[in-house]
Amino acid sequence: MKRITPLRNVKILRPTSELRQDIVSGEWVLVATGRARRPEDFARVKKTPAQPKKSCPFEDPQKSGNPSPLLWYPHPKALARDDFANWFVQVIPNKYPAVIPHAQNVCSSQHHRGIYSSMDGVGYHEVIITRKHEESLGLMSVAEAELVIRAYKERYMSVKSDPCLAYVLVFHNHGHEAGASVPHPHSQIIALPIVPPDVVRSFEGSERFFKREEACVHCRVVAEELKLGERIVYENERFVALAPYASHSSFELRIYPKRHSPRFETLSDKDMRHLADALTRILKKLHKALNDPAYNFFIHTAPLIGEAGQNYHWHLEILPKTSTPAGLELGTGVDVVVISPEDVPRMLK
Amino acid sequence: MKRITPLRNVKILRPTSELRQDIVSGEWVLVATGRARRPEDFARVKKTPAQPKKSCPFEDPQKSGNPSPLLWYPHPKALARDDFANWFVQVIPNKYPAVIPHAQNVCSSQHHRGIYSSMDGVGYHEVIITRKHEESLGLMSVAEAELVIRAYKERYMSVKSDPCLAYVLVFHNHGHEAGASVPHPHSQIIALPIVPPDVVRSFEGSERFFKREEACVHCRVVAEELKLGERIVYENERFVALAPYASHSSFELRIYPKRHSPRFETLSDKDMRHLADALTRILKKLHKALNDPAYNFFIHTAPLIGEAGQNYHWHLEILPKTSTPAGLELGTGVDVVVISPEDVPRMLK
Repeated sequence: MKRITPLRNVKILRPTSELRQDIVSGEWVLVATGRARRPEDFARVKKTPAQPKKSCPFEDPQKSGNPSPLLWYPHPKALARDDFANWFVQVIPNKYPAVIPHAQNVCSSQHHRGIYSSMDGVGYHEVIITRKHEESLGLMSVAEAELVIRAYKERYMSVKSDPCLAYVLVFHNHGHEAGASVPHPHSQIIALPIVPPDVVRSFEGSERFFKREEACVHCRVVAEELKLGERIVYENERFVALAPYASHSSFELRIYPKRHSPRFETLSDKDMRHLADALTRILKKLHKALNDPAYNFFIHTAPLIGEAGQNYHWHLEILPKTSTPAGLELGTGVDVVVISPEDVPRMLK
Repeated sequence: MKRITPLRNVKILRPTSELRQDIVSGEWVLVATGRARRPEDFARVKKTPAQPKKSCPFEDPQKSGNPSPLLWYPHPKALARDDFANWFVQVIPNKYPAVIPHAQNVCSSQHHRGIYSSMDGVGYHEVIITRKHEESLGLMSVAEAELVIRAYKERYMSVKSDPCLAYVLVFHNHGHEAGASVPHPHSQIIALPIVPPDVVRSFEGSERFFKREEACVHCRVVAEELKLGERIVYENERFVALAPYASHSSFELRIYPKRHSPRFETLSDKDMRHLADALTRILKKLHKALNDPAYNFFIHTAPLIGEAGQNYHWHLEILPKTSTPAGLELGTGVDVVVISPEDVPRMLK
């Protein structure tokens, strides 16, 4: 059990408390640096020891009873590229799916039971596994991480063709504390018959801003942040990674494409390489500075249904698991962070 | 380290996945019973051993450097009722406050920094401590729990008088996994200068329903649930406790006053006794059935500012910590539960 002690690096002159408004959703977060003094506050950024390889269900997914992969890629350096023995990425259906494929040509519709409404939880839920048990995304080479992103895109394109579905989420859980039920590195992709509420809020906020300002709010954020520089953690030719002004967790990081781009799935081969570069760089920084913390990341992109989404701007959000949301957060929806986003670039150096 | 094994009692005939709409907010949750089969799923409902009394900062709060209490009550059975040595409940300012009292007569206003907005995090953040180190609310007598509720109401009335504030949240964290930084039983009260987003959604949803149906949505839920009976966990003359149709966590429970009542702070002495009865009863049920799980609870009530709130209906929400929200929940805002709310009353018997 490891514990991080990033507080060595934090100088808190006097406790402050500031409510910051998310420019897209209009909602508030609370930046309360005084709470960083709580001795317990970072004790939860720890990782339980990795599950041993021999009992790992993702070490050899087919041997563990999973079907043939929906998609697989050989390792970038593999010579026999058609030999499945050289797989580096493989995608399989989730054995414990949160949504279930629908009967052919029957989309989910709303049911009513008394005063209540429901829908069948139809959709797809897949797992994207990489080969090496101990090699998390942050430890991968750019070429390896690029293959993971390529699998995201390819499976996205595949499930997107189903006319019953409304939204596709790509996400990744790293570490037991971040809810990863299997420690072997894997991402997930889930296709849902609804546009989920957090996406609705992000999407509607972007539309609202566009109507008022005739500009993409995310482009505006990227331009402002590049001008200020104080919250930028990394940038390359095509992507910028930053600690958001209204962060939802301490050390939250977001990666935005610099060029306006509503949909994740339109990214080019060159974009993929640059995204893999940005993602591995900042995950490495987190790994080093916070002693391999647990984290979640996900991609927000334009929904499959509804407005065209031209004013949206896809991005990737990384939320290190630095604390447990408790009654305050659960009862208000206001997330509390104890590290100022402006301190994050220095702390991750 | 204790683990619960409620799955002994669950018979899952075939995995199902159902999206259920919250009748108030209009948002969706996912009831995916197939995921209850995941061996890891309930492993997180465990409690770390209690902190020893001798190092507990709440054992003798004043000896631990806290100021005199803002409020205290003697134990219901104490004979010398004016003797502070007999305190059973005491309220002190939170040593690590998330919000900070404002300078006299200066309310927080919105600041602008470039494209961003912020507000000073002004307000009050207090801790309501009960005497006995090992006696959580669910183990208390009704008379003891009634004193805790009385302290909630009295401090609510006190901070409510500040014209700078917009919302007061009463909440309680039990167990390390639910974010309780100190295991000694305590609740918290926080007064904020904004109406937080989750409350806005609950409040606006109630107004929307009233405009459409000319009825309180919560009264409608209580009536429907009492008629159906299948999700009722406990009721007494004045309160009903139930597993909500669209639960946000497995084993979520809510307590509603049966009579329409917008504001928590209007509850009478008799109401307090009945609320203490309902709260201790269902916390005892959780304690017994799930082996003292970690949980959070909070009270949702009408905001201090804005519309009169006559169509709101205060209630108490209890969220057992049965899983860790991961990328799926964080990326969508859709909570996933693996136990059907209809199975909860039987499992808590």
